[in-house]
Amino acid sequence: MKKKTIDVCLSPYLYPIYHKDDSIVVVIDILRATSAMCTAFENGVEKIIPVATIEEATEYKKKGYLVGAERNGIALDGFDFGNSPYSYMNDKIKGKTIVISTTNGTQAIDAAQKAYKVVIGAFTNITAICDWLDSQNKNILLLCSGWKNKFNLEDSLFAGALTERLLKKSDFQLSDSALSVSYLYKQAESNPYKFLRNSSHTERLASMGLKHDIKYCLSLDKTKIIPVLEGKYLVRLS
Amino acid sequence: MKKKTIDVCLSPYLYPIYHKDDSIVVVIDILRATSAMCTAFENGVEKIIPVATIEEATEYKKKGYLVGAERNGIALDGFDFGNSPYSYMNDKIKGKTIVISTTNGTQAIDAAQKAYKVVIGAFTNITAICDWLDSQNKNILLLCSGWKNKFNLEDSLFAGALTERLLKKSDFQLSDSALSVSYLYKQAESNPYKFLRNSSHTERLASMGLKHDIKYCLSLDKTKIIPVLEGKYLVRLS
Repeated sequence: MKKKTIDVCLSPYLYPIYHKDDSIVVVIDILRATSAMCTAFENGVEKIIPVATIEEATEYKKKGYLVGAERNGIALDGFDFGNSPYSYMNDKIKGKTIVISTTNGTQAIDAAQKAYKVVIGAFTNITAICDWLDSQNKNILLLCSGWKNKFNLEDSLFAGALTERLLKKSDFQLSDSALSVSYLYKQAESNPYKFLRNSSHTERLASMGLKHDIKYCLSLDKTKIIPVLEGKYLVRLS
Repeated sequence: MKKKTIDVCLSPYLYPIYHKDDSIVVVIDILRATSAMCTAFENGVEKIIPVATIEEATEYKKKGYLVGAERNGIALDGFDFGNSPYSYMNDKIKGKTIVISTTNGTQAIDAAQKAYKVVIGAFTNITAICDWLDSQNKNILLLCSGWKNKFNLEDSLFAGALTERLLKKSDFQLSDSALSVSYLYKQAESNPYKFLRNSSHTERLASMGLKHDIKYCLSLDKTKIIPVLEGKYLVRLS
């Protein structure tokens, strides 16, 4: 049997180059969109509508939805949440359909919407997503959201962590980018927080006083839920 | 004084995202276009016209130019060279203007043609290019040609090698991608050939019997020449 492959797409802008009809796409935006989405589900949200633009977010807000909207790391005025995971540890989202628009993560979901299947990955659900991916007989594409279509360190680091865990389960064939993020992860493994202190995005968040968020987003297995895209909704994978 | 920056663009497709008006762009296609171009200059070529398409290459051939044309690692029939550096160790190119079209490298040059300055980098001219870059008061963008717009290991490795050498000379500010390729290089430094054996592209070339080429392309400082783009020509930087 041909080995399943793990490939890594390092920017949403490159997604059309990496798209394969039969791959499961894992969207990654560690700081902080996909971490926040996992937290929202763990805190009882029913569905999330990820939208790429502020205009769409505003339309949903007018219709009465609870809406999270963030650009450049800052929660936008007039909305209910930003993209801090802590803002979704909140009883008022329980059982609700909420809307989220962020600088990078929701753009990546948008880019991958024609994939065979799109799931949401973060350190906070890494074991669940690793076990599930390994149980599927599909090629895997890890899609890093990056920062405004540029490479970023934290998403690549997670892609490496997931690749390394998958390799402990099965014998996948790695692309060059998958090999590269695996090497990256091996160097960071002992202390990812310290490793990321060198990252431009981490510096940006830290200068906004968000160290607390960063530490949360690097913590493992806060939930067993895997958000999956069904039409325009993210729902729990059942 | 603000620190100069080193950024790394991991695919020609991403070039528009990384373009800055004042950056020097180093185009990198280690296996084998930029290595071959350095070799051609070292062997006396006067100018190289890099062209993106086979059609352009064919037009030049009809006009009587010596033309190198390669796709998917294979020299195309009806042309004078492929992109093996060894094919340019050849007296008949001395003093001539030749034309080269390759799968990745000449596409990357094409993508960056509006940059402030475009130079050609390879392990075979690494010391020359490092010294020159350090002498310029400009930001630096290392443009990896990759493989058909996908990330590849060997170009990233060179970007990391050059970044590490530049850091030994001056205090540059690194982007996330520059940090990442530096980490990659540190893992490969003791034996880049062995490291690259894991690379999909290296496997592809090795299966074509091109180990000899790979070893040459990883050898340091075969020339002091830095090819630079002037209009449609690559010439020696003076």
